[in-house]
Amino acid sequence: MGRFFSIKYDRLRPYEPGEPIQQKKTIKLNTNESPYPASPFVYRSIDQFEIDNLRLYSDPSAEKLIKAIAKNFSLDESQVAVGNGSDELLALVFMAFQNQEGRVYFPELTYEFYSTCAEAFCGSKIEVPLGDELTIDPADYCGLDGTIVLANPNTPTGLALTRAQVEAILRANSDNLVVIDEAYGDYGAESCVPLIEQFSNLLVIQTFSKSRNLAGARIGFAMGSPELIQDMNRIKRAFHPHNINRLSVIAGTASMKDQDYFKKCINDVKRTREAVAKELRTLGFTVLDSQANFLFARYPSLGGGAYCQALKEKNILVKHSDSPKIVDYVRITIGTPEQMEQLLKATRDILGIEELRDSEK
Amino acid sequence: MGRFFSIKYDRLRPYEPGEPIQQKKTIKLNTNESPYPASPFVYRSIDQFEIDNLRLYSDPSAEKLIKAIAKNFSLDESQVAVGNGSDELLALVFMAFQNQEGRVYFPELTYEFYSTCAEAFCGSKIEVPLGDELTIDPADYCGLDGTIVLANPNTPTGLALTRAQVEAILRANSDNLVVIDEAYGDYGAESCVPLIEQFSNLLVIQTFSKSRNLAGARIGFAMGSPELIQDMNRIKRAFHPHNINRLSVIAGTASMKDQDYFKKCINDVKRTREAVAKELRTLGFTVLDSQANFLFARYPSLGGGAYCQALKEKNILVKHSDSPKIVDYVRITIGTPEQMEQLLKATRDILGIEELRDSEK
Repeated sequence: MGRFFSIKYDRLRPYEPGEPIQQKKTIKLNTNESPYPASPFVYRSIDQFEIDNLRLYSDPSAEKLIKAIAKNFSLDESQVAVGNGSDELLALVFMAFQNQEGRVYFPELTYEFYSTCAEAFCGSKIEVPLGDELTIDPADYCGLDGTIVLANPNTPTGLALTRAQVEAILRANSDNLVVIDEAYGDYGAESCVPLIEQFSNLLVIQTFSKSRNLAGARIGFAMGSPELIQDMNRIKRAFHPHNINRLSVIAGTASMKDQDYFKKCINDVKRTREAVAKELRTLGFTVLDSQANFLFARYPSLGGGAYCQALKEKNILVKHSDSPKIVDYVRITIGTPEQMEQLLKATRDILGIEELRDSEK
Repeated sequence: MGRFFSIKYDRLRPYEPGEPIQQKKTIKLNTNESPYPASPFVYRSIDQFEIDNLRLYSDPSAEKLIKAIAKNFSLDESQVAVGNGSDELLALVFMAFQNQEGRVYFPELTYEFYSTCAEAFCGSKIEVPLGDELTIDPADYCGLDGTIVLANPNTPTGLALTRAQVEAILRANSDNLVVIDEAYGDYGAESCVPLIEQFSNLLVIQTFSKSRNLAGARIGFAMGSPELIQDMNRIKRAFHPHNINRLSVIAGTASMKDQDYFKKCINDVKRTREAVAKELRTLGFTVLDSQANFLFARYPSLGGGAYCQALKEKNILVKHSDSPKIVDYVRITIGTPEQMEQLLKATRDILGIEELRDSEK
C-alpha cells in the first residue's frame, strides 16, 4: 500500500480473474466464456461509419440497447438499466441499495465479487452457510433484515433455485431488496424475470458475457421495477454517464436481436454439458447437477488442486479454489465438444485409465 | 428516491452530459468531442477475428494498450494505469487516495464530476474560489492538508497553469497527492508528465476522448509513480478487473500508434481555435485565452443563456451554466472550420450585424 492509499480499502482483496492463456494450444475452461464466437449480426453491425463515429461520446441512455433488451424480455424500457459488464451494475447495486445498517446477505460460497463490493460499500456483510450438499436453503433467506444477493444458478456449484423458491424468499422479504444474479441463468434454470411485475423488491441482473458470447464487450443489464431502475440510473449517471462504449452498444443490440443464434449456442452448450457430466460420472467423478455453462466435479481420491494442476500440465485450464468446503472440487467451463473430448482424454490419462478406454473402442 | 435507495447518496447530483443531437443537421459544439474521425489505424485494427473474439474476456492488465501508452510517453509500464474513460479513473482516485480526514481540494469552477466523486467518497470537499479573471492562483493550493485535484487546462475556462506553477504546488504539498487532469492538455498547455519521475505525489490523468478522437471508446489513463499506479490497479482490480472492453483496447492501441494523425488533428483544432477567437473578439466578445479544444466567451450585452438559446434555435449546441460567476459565458467546442463558420454566421445573425459583415465582403 502506497503512502496516499486510503486505509478504508486496505483489506480489499482484488478479484482474481482466471489465468490468461500463455500458449496458443491451451484450452481455456477456467472463466466460463462461451466457446462460440459472437453472433454474425455483431460483425455486420460494426462498419467504418461506426468506427469513425468513435469520436463522439456514447449515448448516456444507451437507448438502442435498452430498447432491444426490453423488447426481448417483453418489459418496458423503464424496467431496464445497462452497465459496463454486470460487475459495474453489481458495484452500483451494493452502493445504491442499503438500509440504514448497511447489511447485505449472500451465500458463503458464491461469486467472490459480492464480498469485495460489500467490504467496500456496505456496513456489514453476512455470509450465509451453504447446506451439506453445497445447496442454498431458501429458508435461510426468509425474514432477513438487509439486502439479499443470490447468484442463480450459483457459482461455483451450478446449482439453481426454482422460481417458486425465489418467490418464497421475495414474499418473506417484502422490505428488503432481493438481487438475483442470473449471469448463468440461460443454461437451464428458471429465470425470475417473470416475477418483476409482481415484486417491487426484486432486481434481476443478467450479462452478455456468457450465453450471449460477448464477455469482451462488457455489457450487463438489470431488470426490475421502474423505481429501482431509476435509482440505478441515478447513481450510474453520477459516476459513469457514458459507461458503455459505442461499439459495445452496437454489438449488444445486434446480439440481442439474433435469438436463433443465441438459442443454438445455449443448446449446444447444454448438450455438451450433459454428455461430459455423464462421462465424468462414469469415470467415477461426483458431478453436481449444474444448470450453468460449467460443471463442478470432484474425484474421490484425487484432490481438486492436484487435478487442476495435472490438467494445467496438459495445457487445460480449469478453476480450483482453496476454500475448505470445496477444496476437492474443480470448476470446468463447457467448451466445444472437441475441447471437452480433450479434457476427458487428459482426465483418463491423469487417472491412468486411458488404455482401458482405448481398448474398449 | 426509491424505498431501497441509500440515504448516503441522496444528495448526489447526476452529471448532466451535453444534450444529444436531435436533428441530423445540428452542429454539436457542447461536449468537446473532436470534430475529426478516429485514426484510420483504428478501422484497420478491428476485423472479424477480433469481433469473433468478443466471446473472450478482455485482458485485465490491458497489456497492449499500456505498452503503447508507456512507449509514447517514454515511461515504464509500471507508471501507467488505464480506465473505462478518465471518469472511471477519477472515481477510483477519489475512492483510493484520501488522508484520514478525507479532505479534497479543487477549484469552485471546474469539471463537475470532481464534486460528484468527492460527495460520494470523501470526508469533505473544499472548493477553492477562482480569481477575478476566473484564474487559478497556485498560491491558493500551497501547503494544504488533503488531496488536490486540478484540471489543466481548467474547464470551462480553458485557462492553463504553467508546468512551473504546478511544480510549485507539488513542492508545497509533498505529503498530499496532487492530481493533474490533462483531459484538454494536448491543445497547448505544458504537460506535467515530465514531472512524474521527480514527484511521487503527482498523478497525471489523460483521456482518449478529446485529442485522440475516441470519446465513444471510453479510454482514460493515469500516469504516476509505480507506487501510485499499483494502488490504482489494486482498487481497479477489486471493482472492474475487465474494465476496458476488447475493442477499446484495440482501438486505443492503434490510435496511440498513429502520432502523425494525432498531431495533425490537434494542429487543425488549434488553428481553428485561434481564428474563431480572433473573429469573436472582433465581433465584440470577451474570449478567454483557451489552451483547450473549446473557447469560453461572453458578449457584453447578451447573456450567456440567451446566446446559448439563440444558437440552439439555429441548430447549434453550445454549453451554458447558470453558475453566477460564469452565467454570462458560453463554452464553445472547436469543430471543423466549416462548422465554426456556421457558428460565426449564426452569431452575427443573433447580434444583428450580418448585413454589415456581408457588405464588407
